[in-house]
Amino acid sequence: MFLLNGEHRHCVDVSDRGFQYGDGLFETVEVLQGKPLFFDRHLKRLAEGCRRLLIPMPDSALFEAEARQLSESSDRAVLKLMVTRGSGGRGYRQPDQIIPTRLFSLHPYPDYPQHFQVDGIAARFCDQRLSLNPSLAGIKHMNRLEQILARAEWQDDSIQEGLMLDTQDRVVEGTMSNLFIVKSGNLYTPSLGQCGVAGIVRELIMEFAQRIKLPLFEQPVDQAAVLQADELFVSNSVIGIWPIKRLEARVFKVGVITRRLQDLLNTARMAEV
Amino acid sequence: MFLLNGEHRHCVDVSDRGFQYGDGLFETVEVLQGKPLFFDRHLKRLAEGCRRLLIPMPDSALFEAEARQLSESSDRAVLKLMVTRGSGGRGYRQPDQIIPTRLFSLHPYPDYPQHFQVDGIAARFCDQRLSLNPSLAGIKHMNRLEQILARAEWQDDSIQEGLMLDTQDRVVEGTMSNLFIVKSGNLYTPSLGQCGVAGIVRELIMEFAQRIKLPLFEQPVDQAAVLQADELFVSNSVIGIWPIKRLEARVFKVGVITRRLQDLLNTARMAEV
Repeated sequence: MFLLNGEHRHCVDVSDRGFQYGDGLFETVEVLQGKPLFFDRHLKRLAEGCRRLLIPMPDSALFEAEARQLSESSDRAVLKLMVTRGSGGRGYRQPDQIIPTRLFSLHPYPDYPQHFQVDGIAARFCDQRLSLNPSLAGIKHMNRLEQILARAEWQDDSIQEGLMLDTQDRVVEGTMSNLFIVKSGNLYTPSLGQCGVAGIVRELIMEFAQRIKLPLFEQPVDQAAVLQADELFVSNSVIGIWPIKRLEARVFKVGVITRRLQDLLNTARMAEV
Repeated sequence: MFLLNGEHRHCVDVSDRGFQYGDGLFETVEVLQGKPLFFDRHLKRLAEGCRRLLIPMPDSALFEAEARQLSESSDRAVLKLMVTRGSGGRGYRQPDQIIPTRLFSLHPYPDYPQHFQVDGIAARFCDQRLSLNPSLAGIKHMNRLEQILARAEWQDDSIQEGLMLDTQDRVVEGTMSNLFIVKSGNLYTPSLGQCGVAGIVRELIMEFAQRIKLPLFEQPVDQAAVLQADELFVSNSVIGIWPIKRLEARVFKVGVITRRLQDLLNTARMAEV
């Protein structure tokens, strides 16, 4: 199911700058019992991305209506929202008047085994690095070749996620998730000021930590810190929180802090429906 | 005029990874008297890009036939060729079987004033940096937000190009061109091993230099070297060679080496038709 600029179409003009240059942003939203969860937060991040990329954001009332329209008959699904700079301009130069393209698409919720969340997943370190560019850091833009190349490094279905380092050897995030470390009762997550995507669930987890007075540190993280963690997990809007039980040769237990945060996330999700 | 997978269509499915993630490559080719110029070189660069991005390149005979078909009735035009990874896969993960999308589009040749080539252009330094990532350096991929943000920095029509530095303060190229410096009878061009696009005309100029025994140095270049140049010019397949007559506060003459290279390029272009 698709809504392209409000119409049931799924074919975009090749002149759209989203196609030509990846000139746009997207949001990936969990739909549960007909509701797009944490949608106001997703819209807020989209608005920040539009501001950073100089794309005029369409009226959020339009987004809310279309999101509801697509979501209401789904018990569980994934709603994707894309906004591009539309067509026009000469080469990289943007058009004088920007008419953004907006696309909603509804997808089946992936059939992940329950044990990913309960027992944890296996992960690896990727060779492909994240490049550093503060202009593009944190926002969910459509230039995703680095993630594509990182994901292409493994076909082994027993590995669910790959962790990416930046070009200065800091561990930043997974190809499609954010990363958290628990060590000695403290929670750590890599800072995203130079690369990476600031996830909605990451934002929620950081708020939960404050609420339950779990000491939280947003800072650069190196491989040693990751491998020496007491607990390790990744997060995004579709998977929620997946503990990491195995990373390269190292094995991790699913710890109490991870479980606590999973519970808090589930409570927050239920409060949305 | 468009040929999308061989058909006269200009609407692409929104599931195409070129739209979703900028997952693809492009070539911008000068058409002169019905001929796409230096097409074998463009195909060679495209093949290298496909190899680097793990996209199976469609048969080049197909490209040649379609390029000819679109170009033959144009006295002067710009032919754009795009290849994406097509649709499929889950998220960043590529499909097991990749069916690339190929798109040819023909565009009017831009109405640049003749004096850009004869007298030179005005340029500026951009604030937006090029990030460093060897995996993506040199190839003409579709993730172009950095160039878009750089170009958005100025609307002043009296400035034709912006020069971009990388995140380690090296001057690399223009937003849509490569950069050359002449100093004390030597030719310099920034190395592109960490970022930038290795242009076809840049490649030709480097061959001309060897042919006429003009000493050529491909190396890191800083702002001081650019501002202290005897001669300065930019190049791409559509503009050819544009001398820079003004860069920020500095003024440059159009020198004899620049003129020589423009002549050699024109001769090479004429030999193609």
